[in-house]
Amino acid sequence: MNSFGRIFRVHIFGESHGDCVGVLLDGVPAGIKIDQKELRAVLEKRKAGLPGTTKRMEKDIPNIRTGLFKDKTTGAPILISFDNKSKNSRPYEELKDTPRPGHADFSSWIKYFGFNDYRGAGHASGRITLGLVCAGWIAKKIVKGIRIESQFFAGGDIKKAIKEKDSVGGIVECRISKMPAGFGEPFFDSIESLLSHALFSIPGVKGVEFGAGFEGALMTGSQYNDAILDLSGKTRTNNAGGVNGGISNGNDILFRIALRPAASIGIEQETIDLKTGKMKKIKIKGDHDACYGLRVPVIVNAVCSIVLADLMLSRKALCVQAH
Amino acid sequence: MNSFGRIFRVHIFGESHGDCVGVLLDGVPAGIKIDQKELRAVLEKRKAGLPGTTKRMEKDIPNIRTGLFKDKTTGAPILISFDNKSKNSRPYEELKDTPRPGHADFSSWIKYFGFNDYRGAGHASGRITLGLVCAGWIAKKIVKGIRIESQFFAGGDIKKAIKEKDSVGGIVECRISKMPAGFGEPFFDSIESLLSHALFSIPGVKGVEFGAGFEGALMTGSQYNDAILDLSGKTRTNNAGGVNGGISNGNDILFRIALRPAASIGIEQETIDLKTGKMKKIKIKGDHDACYGLRVPVIVNAVCSIVLADLMLSRKALCVQAH
Amino acid sequence: MNSFGRIFRVHIFGESHGDCVGVLLDGVPAGIKIDQKELRAVLEKRKAGLPGTTKRMEKDIPNIRTGLFKDKTTGAPILISFDNKSKNSRPYEELKDTPRPGHADFSSWIKYFGFNDYRGAGHASGRITLGLVCAGWIAKKIVKGIRIESQFFAGGDIKKAIKEKDSVGGIVECRISKMPAGFGEPFFDSIESLLSHALFSIPGVKGVEFGAGFEGALMTGSQYNDAILDLSGKTRTNNAGGVNGGISNGNDILFRIALRPAASIGIEQETIDLKTGKMKKIKIKGDHDACYGLRVPVIVNAVCSIVLADLMLSRKALCVQAH
Amino acid sequence: MNSFGRIFRVHIFGESHGDCVGVLLDGVPAGIKIDQKELRAVLEKRKAGLPGTTKRMEKDIPNIRTGLFKDKTTGAPILISFDNKSKNSRPYEELKDTPRPGHADFSSWIKYFGFNDYRGAGHASGRITLGLVCAGWIAKKIVKGIRIESQFFAGGDIKKAIKEKDSVGGIVECRISKMPAGFGEPFFDSIESLLSHALFSIPGVKGVEFGAGFEGALMTGSQYNDAILDLSGKTRTNNAGGVNGGISNGNDILFRIALRPAASIGIEQETIDLKTGKMKKIKIKGDHDACYGLRVPVIVNAVCSIVLADLMLSRKALCVQAH
Repeated sequence: MNSFGRIFRVHIFGESHGDCVGVLLDGVPAGIKIDQKELRAVLEKRKAGLPGTTKRMEKDIPNIRTGLFKDKTTGAPILISFDNKSKNSRPYEELKDTPRPGHADFSSWIKYFGFNDYRGAGHASGRITLGLVCAGWIAKKIVKGIRIESQFFAGGDIKKAIKEKDSVGGIVECRISKMPAGFGEPFFDSIESLLSHALFSIPGVKGVEFGAGFEGALMTGSQYNDAILDLSGKTRTNNAGGVNGGISNGNDILFRIALRPAASIGIEQETIDLKTGKMKKIKIKGDHDACYGLRVPVIVNAVCSIVLADLMLSRKALCVQAH
Repeated sequence: MNSFGRIFRVHIFGESHGDCVGVLLDGVPAGIKIDQKELRAVLEKRKAGLPGTTKRMEKDIPNIRTGLFKDKTTGAPILISFDNKSKNSRPYEELKDTPRPGHADFSSWIKYFGFNDYRGAGHASGRITLGLVCAGWIAKKIVKGIRIESQFFAGGDIKKAIKEKDSVGGIVECRISKMPAGFGEPFFDSIESLLSHALFSIPGVKGVEFGAGFEGALMTGSQYNDAILDLSGKTRTNNAGGVNGGISNGNDILFRIALRPAASIGIEQETIDLKTGKMKKIKIKGDHDACYGLRVPVIVNAVCSIVLADLMLSRKALCVQAH
Repeated sequence: MNSFGRIFRVHIFGESHGDCVGVLLDGVPAGIKIDQKELRAVLEKRKAGLPGTTKRMEKDIPNIRTGLFKDKTTGAPILISFDNKSKNSRPYEELKDTPRPGHADFSSWIKYFGFNDYRGAGHASGRITLGLVCAGWIAKKIVKGIRIESQFFAGGDIKKAIKEKDSVGGIVECRISKMPAGFGEPFFDSIESLLSHALFSIPGVKGVEFGAGFEGALMTGSQYNDAILDLSGKTRTNNAGGVNGGISNGNDILFRIALRPAASIGIEQETIDLKTGKMKKIKIKGDHDACYGLRVPVIVNAVCSIVLADLMLSRKALCVQAH
Repeated sequence: MNSFGRIFRVHIFGESHGDCVGVLLDGVPAGIKIDQKELRAVLEKRKAGLPGTTKRMEKDIPNIRTGLFKDKTTGAPILISFDNKSKNSRPYEELKDTPRPGHADFSSWIKYFGFNDYRGAGHASGRITLGLVCAGWIAKKIVKGIRIESQFFAGGDIKKAIKEKDSVGGIVECRISKMPAGFGEPFFDSIESLLSHALFSIPGVKGVEFGAGFEGALMTGSQYNDAILDLSGKTRTNNAGGVNGGISNGNDILFRIALRPAASIGIEQETIDLKTGKMKKIKIKGDHDACYGLRVPVIVNAVCSIVLADLMLSRKALCVQAH
């Protein structure tokens, strides 16, 4: 469904070419100071306009509509929405019977029995991540001592892809530092489980690995095990990526995600015509991201904040001073 | 927490050296035929005893204690437990102040303020996966038309690791075939999100990738996109691993997981003494799996069944004939 | 929290004197036809303007902002909001340090550490029920064969209360007919549990009883038990109110709720001054409902639809044809 | 379903005439001291054997099977089960095609498509409340400063009912004192919503009212409103039953529940024969409670502890010191 979290709850809504997209937050502690200018600065990082990203310049103006009073959170749900303005649905009408390869067009058509809003991928649009960024921005205030940094590495030559109307994917590496030990709620809600759950929601993510990850599968135990150096839990190496048994161990949390190349390309592709049942060649018009990965780090940071904020609230709830 | 699923609900419990481990299932449709012999055969596949796995031969006898009547499910919760028999806690008492590198000993000690059951990793033991296998066995009856196959590839030389008291990790590849399109509940409950959530609960899993995964991050969009061939959604290639926009697209679901080498090795390691705060060398005694990965495919299959059963029940609930 | 339901999910938001109030719906099957005029007609029933209700005439115009396409639900979340227009916050500023007796002013002040929006009861305002009515309207389309009727009986003389600037409470009786047997998910999610959970969310509800209710506590078993007459489950009497063991039995579901008189009255009352810690007399100005109970039946009907829709989706999910 | 709570989670299982009944608890803080003798003393209060309760003397011996170590909670799930010993299923086989009036026999038969365990009401048995009592016992340790007292008032003449093989119902009044203000999570998770949700799960409960309850519906606002006397929130009267806007206001929480008379009576009753579709007269044999209400106060207290423990953990999570 469109909800995530146990205490700090994130509810996502909207479509690319409908009225708006946004997020509803619940379980936000009262009394958190909110500076809307700060949010705009964060959103700026996600924006199109970089070389390799679409030139379609959305004016992403957040409307914080509920849950604030005198510039502080009230403890009531916070609704943040973004009106959709620069939308042109015409190209999507042309493509509505020819699902674009690599997109959710076909799978959504089956899932929603043909009732899905197919314009610009509808609810499956990358534009939905605007709400994630807002949620992460507020979540970060709950875990403000923790530092989260992500970096994108392109999987190919961006300038070449632009020229050839093709696209490239890449890797995002994330490091969470100043991370307290003891976060994570095994058996099922290990910190890796929750992070991967949220990360795989980001459109285009096809792999997640922690610490040494897939390379670690080739190591021996004596190479892999991280020797513990002191009572803070600091280890000599960090092959575990800061997580043992699903619980943070006090070291930096390290993970990498694989981003597939953007599905929208300007090159001719083969697909099926839903009306005739026959194969057809299509070409997708308009501006698209040759490398949307450039916009992903800010989203990954937001996802980390969301997961960690919820885990911090759980940890506060269950700490031993309760009794 | 220890629960997973929205409708088909799995609740895990138990410790390695306590009374028992097991699982409580809720949201199981009434009237499913249960053959307990069949369960024993499934559990056999998970068992120790293979070369490279521990010689400690647990007699894993499942007790189905509630929720059955006349060999059929009743719709009430199903409790399945396994008594712990061959347990020797002494080695763990010796190690209780020296957290074993690579294990959850240190992170659990912090998380549970020193109150965790540290014997044999306690609730973090791989033995907990017995309950997962049982849950998967019942879940499979809900998605009986779907075929799930997993295969393990060792990441090193097992016989060498045994000799050197070291351990090896590896890769598990899974293919889910005869998979209907339309499974997955975006935005947050994409099929990749739910599978990875559950897979990262399995002790030792440190990476998950779907389809072309991390290699796909190096491809261009024109190489990666899977051309759609017919109205069933069949594609020429399957780089997406059977999932677009978080929803199954009718092709096989393909994923790979990275397993770290087992943390328990017989070689001397460095850690901290929790009492003195000084570093100390330890050696872990007893029999351990040099390559527990051999036992993981049956667990991965179970996890897939659990996720797919829950998604199938959701799909049934929300299908269009409702109105 | 502000969410209700397992599959059909209702998320409530907003404040009386903020930007807007409304509801976010998730888990709505795709393909349901939506006629916005119909919604306005339903909302009309909840509106102020009846004798005994406030003269403050809100223009309650629903904005369905997401989740619809070509006048049908898409399966994506549905956001419905109402802009707040006729709001005058001044009287609340005057009262902000003197919590109004009978209102949530004091308890919210404690709960939210003084950060709650106190204007017009903020998030605790009866205005929040607008979102419930919208949710119920869509839910009703999922359970369209079921008939839900509620009636209000005033607990005192309304015209006298208006004259004396006092208020009256009352009883709402509800009958759910054409009700299928088999709804309800014991142990915890009995149909009575879910209905009462949602009913006690309606501001002012202080009691809920099913069938013979509190009078039934004075009967003997031989008087109370409802003889079963045929295979449809029809019973001679209906003391159980259509529910046995938390599951609908095929008879009409009958319940009554107790509504306390409105807390806002124009008569002088005693309270505490939060700044001085001393008692103080206050008089609440402005127009208020002498008998808001007149507006409650439509809300009760909505709540029933919400609960029944979710139970129907659960029932579809778990019906025996699954396997 | 069979689960309740957001952080402190209670999962109920078992059948009257199966192997066992019990409870699985999750989200229990680590480090709580557990004295099993204490639990036996609490269970004693629920036991049969009082005049008016069944003479069937179950030896209700709790087995705490997981989640404890060195007599303290570990933070892992706690499994408590009770073996069923003194069970005689024969009378139920005789009655299996003639659903007993007032029982869940018919509604369960429909709901579970005939697959339910009908012996002794199966999963719908009052015996299931054993697990509730255990859960409440542990929950109470989380809210140990709060005092919870319940009292039963019979709705008729018990000795007469015993003689006539009939049954009586009654009222349970509960007072929760030393209750902190600020508990309750509106909009949906008001303290009244959560208490009533859990209370209506107790077999036989058909009404719940808070404070003045149904009588309050006949009062005017000026009579009903509770004047606030000091900064602790203490009020002159307590018509609201200690709750305003779904949040505890610092006064005692007061509520009353209506218990229907026990469904099992030794007097001839009419029902339907599920095989022939014709009406039939039945007489229920064996010992039954003429007044099970005598055993309910301890269950009501447990339910209050469960709800309050979960709300206290939520309150700890969301308190303002977080940031």
